[in-house]
Amino acid sequence: MKEKKLTSTHYERELREVKKSLIYLGALAEKAIQDATTSLLERNSDLAHEVIAGDDQINKLDVEIEEKCIRLLALRQPAARDLRFITTAIKINGHLERIGDMAVNIAKRALILNEEPQLKPYIDLPRMADITRGMIRESLDALINEDCDLANKVRRDDEMVDNLNEQIFRELLTFMIEDPRTIHRAILITQISKNLERVSDHAESIADMVIYMVTGKSVRHQFRGEKHEK
Amino acid sequence: MKEKKLTSTHYERELREVKKSLIYLGALAEKAIQDATTSLLERNSDLAHEVIAGDDQINKLDVEIEEKCIRLLALRQPAARDLRFITTAIKINGHLERIGDMAVNIAKRALILNEEPQLKPYIDLPRMADITRGMIRESLDALINEDCDLANKVRRDDEMVDNLNEQIFRELLTFMIEDPRTIHRAILITQISKNLERVSDHAESIADMVIYMVTGKSVRHQFRGEKHEK
Repeated sequence: MKEKKLTSTHYERELREVKKSLIYLGALAEKAIQDATTSLLERNSDLAHEVIAGDDQINKLDVEIEEKCIRLLALRQPAARDLRFITTAIKINGHLERIGDMAVNIAKRALILNEEPQLKPYIDLPRMADITRGMIRESLDALINEDCDLANKVRRDDEMVDNLNEQIFRELLTFMIEDPRTIHRAILITQISKNLERVSDHAESIADMVIYMVTGKSVRHQFRGEKHEK
Repeated sequence: MKEKKLTSTHYERELREVKKSLIYLGALAEKAIQDATTSLLERNSDLAHEVIAGDDQINKLDVEIEEKCIRLLALRQPAARDLRFITTAIKINGHLERIGDMAVNIAKRALILNEEPQLKPYIDLPRMADITRGMIRESLDALINEDCDLANKVRRDDEMVDNLNEQIFRELLTFMIEDPRTIHRAILITQISKNLERVSDHAESIADMVIYMVTGKSVRHQFRGEKHEK
């Protein structure tokens, strides 16, 4: 009986560790998005290089968390509820790693843009980055606290980000049409905006999984019509 | 003893079913990419609408396969090798569903482009689509046959697709600079090309997982420097 108790405590500790690692990975991913955006807004190329170099740590943590999850599945043979948490964790882990990739994509474009005169003052882009970063954090908070309300907020925020992306695209299109010399820079900025929009999609996917894990209801394909790229 | 045998056979049948469903989902995803590309090349908007409507089936199958995998984990408590196959299957499933989304993205852009005069004859785009479709099929063949050589071929093909995407982007940039009236159409075509490039990334991720499953060696972050968007 005592043996059993010990084992179970150890198992719970391992589960908690997976949760903590996910939170940590989420914080790294959020920081990467923040730094990548700042490197553009403040024309700070050193920071962009840091983001690119820092992706290694995110990638390593991604592999580690997945290994931890598979070990838990193999050794602990968790039942229903924990099982679903662990399989969800494996997928969330993948989304966070991809967010790290988006940060690198943004940083690489910032490096090019920082070498040229600034096309226009950035207004929507920092707003979009702020919302997106909040979504990463909130989707993981929703996971840890099994908070469907918060997960639903993340889903609503995704629509706002989609609209901002659309707005940025339209504005830059008018720049390009008026002056072809702006085309290269304008396209780079639309790509940055698009990458932020993809980050927001990843956060929304995490929120969808939280809702599924907590309620058993799948929402991830519910608003499909609006969810594809426009 | 006989009971045990029966159970094990049943379990093996369930595993085979997961494999078969993945192959089927892969075929649907490949077909969706093919039809979406054809709808652009042959200016066939009906076909584009079919792709958009057909995504429902892909989404349903995605949910089904994941449920099947989780049930297998819960009821059969598979050991090492099968466990890794099933967790891999859950992730591959997600990639295939995303490929379906890319097909919808392409189809939506084809619908807009089909309403306007064709900007230029498509040469690189159909080649890119062909390679990408082959990669989806081959990555799943590599999974089923645990064929690392084939998985490595998929990884090499991804570089080719990246280069084609780059080439298409450069060519369209010259169009846009020479004649601003082409900008809207040119951007839509670069987005289609970008979506194909993302499909190729998904196929490469599947190939990476196959190599990891078979050899235990992680290659997925190996060429990271080249793998981010340029």
